[in-house]
Amino acid sequence: MTYCVGLRLERGLVFMSDTRTNAGVDNFSKTRKMFQWGVPGERLITLMTAGNLATTQALVSMIEERVKAVSERDPSILHAPSMFQVARMVGRTLKEVIAQSAPVGQTGDSAFQATVILGGQIKGSAPTMFMVYPEGNFIEVTEETPFFQIGETKYGRPILVRAYDPEMAFEDAVKLLLVSFDSTVRSNLSVAPPFDLMVYETDSFAPLLERRIEAEDDVYQSISTGWGDALRTAFDQLPNFKL
Amino acid sequence: MTYCVGLRLERGLVFMSDTRTNAGVDNFSKTRKMFQWGVPGERLITLMTAGNLATTQALVSMIEERVKAVSERDPSILHAPSMFQVARMVGRTLKEVIAQSAPVGQTGDSAFQATVILGGQIKGSAPTMFMVYPEGNFIEVTEETPFFQIGETKYGRPILVRAYDPEMAFEDAVKLLLVSFDSTVRSNLSVAPPFDLMVYETDSFAPLLERRIEAEDDVYQSISTGWGDALRTAFDQLPNFKL
Repeated sequence: MTYCVGLRLERGLVFMSDTRTNAGVDNFSKTRKMFQWGVPGERLITLMTAGNLATTQALVSMIEERVKAVSERDPSILHAPSMFQVARMVGRTLKEVIAQSAPVGQTGDSAFQATVILGGQIKGSAPTMFMVYPEGNFIEVTEETPFFQIGETKYGRPILVRAYDPEMAFEDAVKLLLVSFDSTVRSNLSVAPPFDLMVYETDSFAPLLERRIEAEDDVYQSISTGWGDALRTAFDQLPNFKL
Repeated sequence: MTYCVGLRLERGLVFMSDTRTNAGVDNFSKTRKMFQWGVPGERLITLMTAGNLATTQALVSMIEERVKAVSERDPSILHAPSMFQVARMVGRTLKEVIAQSAPVGQTGDSAFQATVILGGQIKGSAPTMFMVYPEGNFIEVTEETPFFQIGETKYGRPILVRAYDPEMAFEDAVKLLLVSFDSTVRSNLSVAPPFDLMVYETDSFAPLLERRIEAEDDVYQSISTGWGDALRTAFDQLPNFKL
């Protein structure tokens, strides 16, 4: 499967993606699902993918204009005047890629489906984030829906719903994501570390932090083992149900 | 959808089920998904159902022998010598019911599917629990898999995996289930209170507690609102991720 989450905070954007790809439980490997394009000081665009790997790789290659010679590449998303325009380009490209693989045009339940979280900032506008559907259309984050998840979204959702706060510090947001990813990893074999992390601070037009968090990472390990104890403490705080 | 959980503890069994049934989001109502049969002092059998409502109602009616006149009813699960035999009867009946609805015999992805959690105790054996599949076969709880979930299982699973302990008191088990149900209710409209609860103490051959927990229930309300605060406290205990 895959698990990717994008959070919009008051101070910026935080992205995290896992790296497992599989075709059945007997055939799995590691792949990057987070991609970036930018013009330092002017724009930074981050994209995370879930779904058919041939589709998502083709999507990224098309965005990178790998159909052209290296010297002629100049991705159009680096010239779009707004994130909305970028989302339209990504949506159109995604829809095209899926249609090319489908035997008789695109169908709702195509095996070649993919979903994308796209976020970033272009000078002159606020940072924003979109979820792009395989049909090529998309939705944008709002105050009521301030984060997006794609892939195996359910196990890690309750903690996001409960602990997300738009005012939270980046450190806390990363901690929250690690708890959400850990809950997912423990319940679905098709989601696994290492995790790719990207933190973007508003108006910086460059990553504040880009890091691959390995399974052996000290902080991830202590969050993973500490969360059980912390939950039990939380649990004891709750009022008792009397039989 | 539905959400039902059955826990096997050292001191007995605990069952909880929601009561929402729906055919699309524009057509929902309330229905009981937990059923019991027993002979006081000799056996107590509890069944919880998820899946197509016509199938699960037919299953329960067949077990209750509603094809017979009231005076002639004497459900055979009340005479089976072991819980294993009861599981076989339930599995066979479930498979038959589904096959009767399927246009050309039973298929793997029949719309009339249903899954069942069956638990209880018959004098002379320990309490046990089974998950019965639409194909009629079943699995039993083990020390490694000491609880079963059916229906919308994912949102409420992480807390079960982390906080379940076979030695826990019934009060704590009910609290754990309420947290797991609350996480699910908040994320899936097709799962909703009231919840049916049944607590069974080993060798009692009668329910220790049977109760319908309404949405307005004081303890449920304070668990539901308190869990957010408790989680945030738990979250603060975790080591910080340094950027």
